[in-house]
Amino acid sequence: MSGEVIRCKAAVAREAGKPLVMEEVEVAPPQKMEVRLKILFTSLCHTDVYFWEAKGQNPLFPRILGHEAGGIVESVGEGVTELKPGDKVLPIFTGECGECRHCKSEDSNMCDLLRINTDRGVMINDGKSRFSKDGQPIYHFLGTSTFSEYTVVHSGCVAKINPDAPLDKVCVLSCGISTGMGATLNVAKPKKGMSVAIFGLGAVGLAAAEGARIAGASRIIGIDLNPSRANEAKKFGVTEFVNPKDHDKPIHEVIAEMTDGGVDRSVECTGNVKAMISAFECVHDGWGVAVLVGVPNKDDEFKTLPINFLNERTLKGTFFGNYKPRTDIPGVVEKYMNKELEVEKFITHSVGFSEINKAFDYMLKGESLRCIIRMDA
Amino acid sequence: MSGEVIRCKAAVAREAGKPLVMEEVEVAPPQKMEVRLKILFTSLCHTDVYFWEAKGQNPLFPRILGHEAGGIVESVGEGVTELKPGDKVLPIFTGECGECRHCKSEDSNMCDLLRINTDRGVMINDGKSRFSKDGQPIYHFLGTSTFSEYTVVHSGCVAKINPDAPLDKVCVLSCGISTGMGATLNVAKPKKGMSVAIFGLGAVGLAAAEGARIAGASRIIGIDLNPSRANEAKKFGVTEFVNPKDHDKPIHEVIAEMTDGGVDRSVECTGNVKAMISAFECVHDGWGVAVLVGVPNKDDEFKTLPINFLNERTLKGTFFGNYKPRTDIPGVVEKYMNKELEVEKFITHSVGFSEINKAFDYMLKGESLRCIIRMDA
Repeated sequence: MSGEVIRCKAAVAREAGKPLVMEEVEVAPPQKMEVRLKILFTSLCHTDVYFWEAKGQNPLFPRILGHEAGGIVESVGEGVTELKPGDKVLPIFTGECGECRHCKSEDSNMCDLLRINTDRGVMINDGKSRFSKDGQPIYHFLGTSTFSEYTVVHSGCVAKINPDAPLDKVCVLSCGISTGMGATLNVAKPKKGMSVAIFGLGAVGLAAAEGARIAGASRIIGIDLNPSRANEAKKFGVTEFVNPKDHDKPIHEVIAEMTDGGVDRSVECTGNVKAMISAFECVHDGWGVAVLVGVPNKDDEFKTLPINFLNERTLKGTFFGNYKPRTDIPGVVEKYMNKELEVEKFITHSVGFSEINKAFDYMLKGESLRCIIRMDA
Repeated sequence: MSGEVIRCKAAVAREAGKPLVMEEVEVAPPQKMEVRLKILFTSLCHTDVYFWEAKGQNPLFPRILGHEAGGIVESVGEGVTELKPGDKVLPIFTGECGECRHCKSEDSNMCDLLRINTDRGVMINDGKSRFSKDGQPIYHFLGTSTFSEYTVVHSGCVAKINPDAPLDKVCVLSCGISTGMGATLNVAKPKKGMSVAIFGLGAVGLAAAEGARIAGASRIIGIDLNPSRANEAKKFGVTEFVNPKDHDKPIHEVIAEMTDGGVDRSVECTGNVKAMISAFECVHDGWGVAVLVGVPNKDDEFKTLPINFLNERTLKGTFFGNYKPRTDIPGVVEKYMNKELEVEKFITHSVGFSEINKAFDYMLKGESLRCIIRMDA
């Protein structure tokens, strides 16, 4: 089959906000530095929903969404030496060329060549799509397009993982869970016994809490406007729950009072700019570090008094938890394999591929953390 | 003489903005955890001038200013075990109790007990001044008051240094030079070969450049509105000079163009909030670190788009270059002793104590970096 067009099922987004349509599509062979993957499990992330709703972006349809997934290499294109058919892999929405200044820096994972591009719907090799139906192209999404039985991905966006890893679990490590956990472990870097505040207890925030638990934090303070999150958060190591609606004073003051002057670390996972400011202002002077993860509206300004920095606080942002996709993600899977990281508790729902629109419903209703989509069902 | 009142000369600030008055004052013996120092050399820092001008603060007069100095321990109070008469020391405007959470943190030098206090004019032991004239108290400044032949200082604010160190040189290490150098070496931490931008080329900024030179930076870009700084800055390792007045576009864009996307590190030493924002926005995404040193007007807000953080930039502030006064400053003196750090180039003027008001003139005219005041002349 290698080198030939594959015909397979895909869930195509044809219009903003309308249910995905199950169609038979054609998937071209991988070109130079590309691989074709058989997707076995995928899950739904907020970013898929955001681009499906197409509010505030240039809409690009028809498009095959999906970027959290696990699969097997079906075939490889010219020049691909590090992957071969049969390898168990996670496709990643951002890549690692291995050659640019970012890939060579130990601090960055923002590859110049393969950095996330939400507008591009084609492959970088020739500017064309590998998906088509009746001769008409269907656009790619985030270079992954995992809502298809087969997809074509740049080889720099593929993490080769432990062949024993269960893809129906570790597929969720290709985006949100790694993003949150890495924000804590790689960027906030709490030392054992430190206090950590997590703003926003969706999947990413709960993964940030999981990172704090793994790091040995003594107190993990979860902040969310939704009171129903309090119970769920306990499973992820959150020791105290704070709802800003329950307090008259600014939430950073509430947290400072709870913690004798501020938490040691904070991680902001809402994308609300006020929460970002609170997450920064609630860390302790002298050593406090705040990390921004959530993506705000593009015009929202971060504002604070410079004295908050001069009192020796640090503010950082992170992208994909500072993980380099090919270098680091296999190690995240190992954390699951050796039972350091608990992935199952993020997986609240499961549907067959033919019912993929249900996964959208669960997320839109706020019922799910992660819904696994089984491609064979 | 230990345990007795000393009568000596001091330069007393009796009124805001008026020349200091040379007077004979009485200096009480050191109390519990205090030491009395014989000051041999002192120098003038902008902070002295700021509190002498008393604009925007609660004025506190009569007061003995001065906080960059070197001297000898004359006598010690009850409980002082780490210092003895004859020790060569630098008094420091902020202290290190050794017991609080800040002193025990490797990241902080903001001691809970002895942190800088610009409003307090008395000793913390009994809330009284050790200086008087004709029975009337004269207030302290920053716990140091080094514009006096003798002064009383909390023992936690005294760095015991190499007895061979020349005090007429190393006295300048007790404030501005350490602040700038430490901001680069301890906080920005450029790696060998990195590019560093320094905003503001006064004594602190030039010391930040000196830190970049010591760290082995490949490019040190100095930014100042005063074109006369260009030549002087070369002595401090500045390889390129940029005057924002020479450019139409925002200075962070100018620097990004000069450096293929941004500098690796920046250090802001002006206190101007626009320069702070530029210093942050001119660092490279992925790994750039900006450090704030300058103190802004208290209502100035730092503003930026959160995406500048999410692209993996870091913003930190520092106080006294993150040096712990007693633990670290002796090592800074050693850097001078082993010729790693050049102090002489900061010292542009020298006057006898009786001419101390000349030092103010030099600074107000922008003619001096540091003017040494010899107490015996």
